[in-house]
Amino acid sequence: MNYVGIDVGGTNVKIALVNEKGQIVKKASLKTKSTRDAIHVIGDIADGVIELTQGFEYEAIGVGCPGAIDSEAGIVEYSPNLYWKNVALAKGISERTGKPVKISNDANVAALGETKFGAGKSFSDTALLTLGTGLGGGFVVNGKLFEGYKSMGTEIGHTVLKENGVQCSCGRKGCMEVYTSATALIRETLFAMQTDKNSMMWDHCGKDLNKVDGRTAFACARKNDASALKVVDAYIRSLAEGILNVVAVFRSQAVILGGGVSGEREYLTDQLQKYVDERRYGGKDSLRTVILTAQLGNDAGVIGAASLVM
Amino acid sequence: MNYVGIDVGGTNVKIALVNEKGQIVKKASLKTKSTRDAIHVIGDIADGVIELTQGFEYEAIGVGCPGAIDSEAGIVEYSPNLYWKNVALAKGISERTGKPVKISNDANVAALGETKFGAGKSFSDTALLTLGTGLGGGFVVNGKLFEGYKSMGTEIGHTVLKENGVQCSCGRKGCMEVYTSATALIRETLFAMQTDKNSMMWDHCGKDLNKVDGRTAFACARKNDASALKVVDAYIRSLAEGILNVVAVFRSQAVILGGGVSGEREYLTDQLQKYVDERRYGGKDSLRTVILTAQLGNDAGVIGAASLVM
Repeated sequence: MNYVGIDVGGTNVKIALVNEKGQIVKKASLKTKSTRDAIHVIGDIADGVIELTQGFEYEAIGVGCPGAIDSEAGIVEYSPNLYWKNVALAKGISERTGKPVKISNDANVAALGETKFGAGKSFSDTALLTLGTGLGGGFVVNGKLFEGYKSMGTEIGHTVLKENGVQCSCGRKGCMEVYTSATALIRETLFAMQTDKNSMMWDHCGKDLNKVDGRTAFACARKNDASALKVVDAYIRSLAEGILNVVAVFRSQAVILGGGVSGEREYLTDQLQKYVDERRYGGKDSLRTVILTAQLGNDAGVIGAASLVM
Repeated sequence: MNYVGIDVGGTNVKIALVNEKGQIVKKASLKTKSTRDAIHVIGDIADGVIELTQGFEYEAIGVGCPGAIDSEAGIVEYSPNLYWKNVALAKGISERTGKPVKISNDANVAALGETKFGAGKSFSDTALLTLGTGLGGGFVVNGKLFEGYKSMGTEIGHTVLKENGVQCSCGRKGCMEVYTSATALIRETLFAMQTDKNSMMWDHCGKDLNKVDGRTAFACARKNDASALKVVDAYIRSLAEGILNVVAVFRSQAVILGGGVSGEREYLTDQLQKYVDERRYGGKDSLRTVILTAQLGNDAGVIGAASLVM
């Protein structure tokens, strides 16, 4: 049987027809044009579904959407990216397509997709940490999405790792996000370069600070540049401490890394694994959490959305 | 209908007959004598249940037990307090009493009791933090116990709040427990007294450092002693940051404080509430988490255990 998965973003809406094995049968994309009234955006999404699924049978529709979502009511309570407040997204799509619709937070939905059909497919309990502009978190507990009360939880990026540390955009100081996002990594790379004018990182970016990104420090650390190694070591230690916090609370069998920084793959996960192995609660006799890299890439959103209704 | 709740501790086992309103109908207590073989301890518990329930009808038995518990299998995987490893506790009690038995971790069970019948009874999503020798955590999500994979999670005391901070017994540094347990509070009280020989805290303990406890700093802070205020302020700030971490992940409607330090009641909860109100994720428009003091006291264990099978 087939299912439709929709990944609503501030710029684009991705729609895919997904089979029960989590494989994409057919996909499409449309511009969100989110400055319009919600009703027009929803109309376009429903039309997109109808067009994509012509000639196909499918069971139901799952949607991942950024912001605070009341999954049970099918309502987007608040989504700054879309300029939405209390939008009945599930009902809107269901009325136009005649199919049952479930909605949930986009980061959570991606975690479900990665767990059911990606890196986490042999596990029931996982955490997906997305190392991007911010730090996104999604949790699967006993095969189901864990979202906290009214789907408002799992803001792991905004748990404090260093009391009274670096100011976070959320208002608190020392959040995990300000040490483990790609943004944090770039900030620390720039600091390190200002301090060490002889670092290899200057050549790596062609002496153009605008070309520094989340890969700069990792690339030079792999070549043993001392300043780059310092940046990467501190980044990995903070990320590992955050992962250990997740593990203490959830005891996830696997922690899966997504987002730009996860592209460092084994160089990153091997070091994290070692740190976590040495320090996990309960010691060596207790469950070992495996650190993995996400596999579904940009498709995690639509596949995860479809898996909401499987 | 009645239910039996059992709270297994390293020293005593408490057994209570509890009605569907969470009221104790009758209770008893016996010595654990935990150095004996598990089979003898279990035999005594079952005999205690049979004796207590003579002349009463009851439905089933719930048990709270310290350590790592596989609730589904009914097995105590590891309990240092009882010197148990892989003990089939549920089966043992069930065979002798002829009743269905469910077991779970004692801190988690107390959280369930406080939520269903104590301070949290108007909420579906709560966290219970026990401020005692250590920092215990229990979570109720959508009316049910949240325990993490194989009931091994919710070790909130061992999430790091200050990376590279004070050494914790678990091996990590800067855990929430080393700043927010009663033990931490006493440690900081002693430090402050050594630094300030004029502090009112010296008189309060009759100049006997052995008489310093978790109440010393609070008692003198209430009388505006500067050093005591510093200790209490730092304690409250760390606890509030830890509560905010819990709220970011779980979005609990209420955080309930138990254990010795929670005896400070409104003096403690009012300050925590103010701090949390000002900093919770999503700001003033988002769900307000209420900070409460536990109500069931020493009965939370048996009532919570009984509520496992209601």
